[in-house]
Amino acid sequence: MIRFEDRAAFDRALDRLPEPDGSAIEASAARQAQLTKPAGSLGRLEEIALFMAGWQGRERPRADRIRAAIFAGNHGVAARGISAFPPAVTTQMVANFQAGGAAINALAASCGAELSIVPLDLDRPTADICEAPAMSEAECLDALNAGAAAVTAGTDLLFVGEMGIANTTPAAALCAQSFGGLSPDWIGRGTGVDDNGLARKADAVAKALALHGPHCTSAFETLRRLGGREIAAMAGAILAARHLSVPMLLDGFISSAAIAPLARDNPAITAHCLAAHNSAETGHARLLQALRLKPLLQLDMRLGEGSGAAVAAQIVRSALAAHAGMATFAEAAVAGAL
Amino acid sequence: MIRFEDRAAFDRALDRLPEPDGSAIEASAARQAQLTKPAGSLGRLEEIALFMAGWQGRERPRADRIRAAIFAGNHGVAARGISAFPPAVTTQMVANFQAGGAAINALAASCGAELSIVPLDLDRPTADICEAPAMSEAECLDALNAGAAAVTAGTDLLFVGEMGIANTTPAAALCAQSFGGLSPDWIGRGTGVDDNGLARKADAVAKALALHGPHCTSAFETLRRLGGREIAAMAGAILAARHLSVPMLLDGFISSAAIAPLARDNPAITAHCLAAHNSAETGHARLLQALRLKPLLQLDMRLGEGSGAAVAAQIVRSALAAHAGMATFAEAAVAGAL
Repeated sequence: MIRFEDRAAFDRALDRLPEPDGSAIEASAARQAQLTKPAGSLGRLEEIALFMAGWQGRERPRADRIRAAIFAGNHGVAARGISAFPPAVTTQMVANFQAGGAAINALAASCGAELSIVPLDLDRPTADICEAPAMSEAECLDALNAGAAAVTAGTDLLFVGEMGIANTTPAAALCAQSFGGLSPDWIGRGTGVDDNGLARKADAVAKALALHGPHCTSAFETLRRLGGREIAAMAGAILAARHLSVPMLLDGFISSAAIAPLARDNPAITAHCLAAHNSAETGHARLLQALRLKPLLQLDMRLGEGSGAAVAAQIVRSALAAHAGMATFAEAAVAGAL
Repeated sequence: MIRFEDRAAFDRALDRLPEPDGSAIEASAARQAQLTKPAGSLGRLEEIALFMAGWQGRERPRADRIRAAIFAGNHGVAARGISAFPPAVTTQMVANFQAGGAAINALAASCGAELSIVPLDLDRPTADICEAPAMSEAECLDALNAGAAAVTAGTDLLFVGEMGIANTTPAAALCAQSFGGLSPDWIGRGTGVDDNGLARKADAVAKALALHGPHCTSAFETLRRLGGREIAAMAGAILAARHLSVPMLLDGFISSAAIAPLARDNPAITAHCLAAHNSAETGHARLLQALRLKPLLQLDMRLGEGSGAAVAAQIVRSALAAHAGMATFAEAAVAGAL
């Protein structure tokens, strides 16, 4: 298990990112070239198989142990009327996750993922980012480590998701701080806020950037000032997964925003990540472009909870089933191309 | 089971297409509005649930009995050097399907589909469409009925696929004849033909259209003259599925081209069909637009065999799992939007 002892340990982990297993990728590509299909005809399924081979270090990667961790946190900035739902819904939805009634429960079961729910101090919202850093150094480190603790070596595929009323606001602030651009480019309607709520959201992001921008000199500091517990936990999980060679599916806008500050410091952080989907949330397409990721799906989803990743996990399962299960031209006595 | 006694019976079946169950759609939509998620936040998964509800006639549609039928046929026009693979591969790949070694075997197993393989007179290729109608009236009717015979009432979801070396050529001819446009718009590289093969392909389509165009006055006649056995079988299956209220996933360019002549006569034929994906084959995006279908996936696949539909079936499974399995706001004691 990975644990970040202090912020310097986090910085070091981000600075020294392991690479995939090149020989497994080569072996996997050699196998792929022999399978009974025209070369390249399975399109992105073929890319997925090689990607998974590299991180699992196997010619025929598996999707037997898929794990999902959903982190939940509350946000001081929610008091500014920037969400369509009241903050109490975070805790209510965690209870729904635990009772098995949410979308992610059904979707995780559908793709065969083992689901863990990690509520993070829900009775203690982060500070309002318009007025102070969201978290103290110790709080941010705790959240990063809660994420890292959810990653188990030997997991075939991991995805993380989130629940936190108002968390598209810190997510937008993280994107704007990390990648620049006009802040409206990053601000969307989240769960469906109205025009007035949207204006308050834009105002909150502008205030937060003005207050914290000059101090956001590292990924850790940016997460601590502009993030939230579930956001830092996802970042910690993604970084820990890299060091355990566990391939990841990134879910939507917020889980992708969680690594925006990491990607600014070290763009290679996304190399063990597939982007599950391009959600309907404003800013997600731009964010994926900044992270140099091409989404697998575009189904106009915008729920969070890891829901898009759970659907995309089905695509990964299909890709690996074909790669591992198909016969070669020689095995099947099928003629190759003319 | 549906059977078309003669071409007039086929024409009647195409003329009188049943509608989905409106009250099941309403009940399903009412349920959807109560599920613990922001309205609309599952995007196309929500549309899929209502679509399936309408054709299955249930508030909570199921994906327990997914069936796939793969039809194979040989084409006289293959002798013109228009494919990257020799015609013998059709029979070899059928053996591969039957032995379980092809992509569709792995992908069908992955989505839980029961697979049937239907070779259609492989030792008797259709006539070269540049010189004569592909099939006699009796041959075309036999192929349509082979397709219809593969459809079982009570199937939750059906998809059809194909194998037939050179069959992107008749598929392109069917599209050009049905929807017009320049024939190069419909002609692609199939399994990966080179530039010379592509030129021969364009020439073959032009010749076939010049010879048969004036006689293609009905869907049946167009299929008979420009199609092929596996293509007519897919058209027969899709039309039979409509009359048995079985929802369908259309696979790629060729399975979609199979209903191009049907859609020209009655555009409502696609109402019980979801488009699985937009393949990498030239003309498929244009064809989906002409059929007024929006693909679920875009993964640069171009294999045929029903492979894209098998992957998209995973999306349908996820959509129905969420729709059937989620708790309502009241059940979970979660507050609704402000």
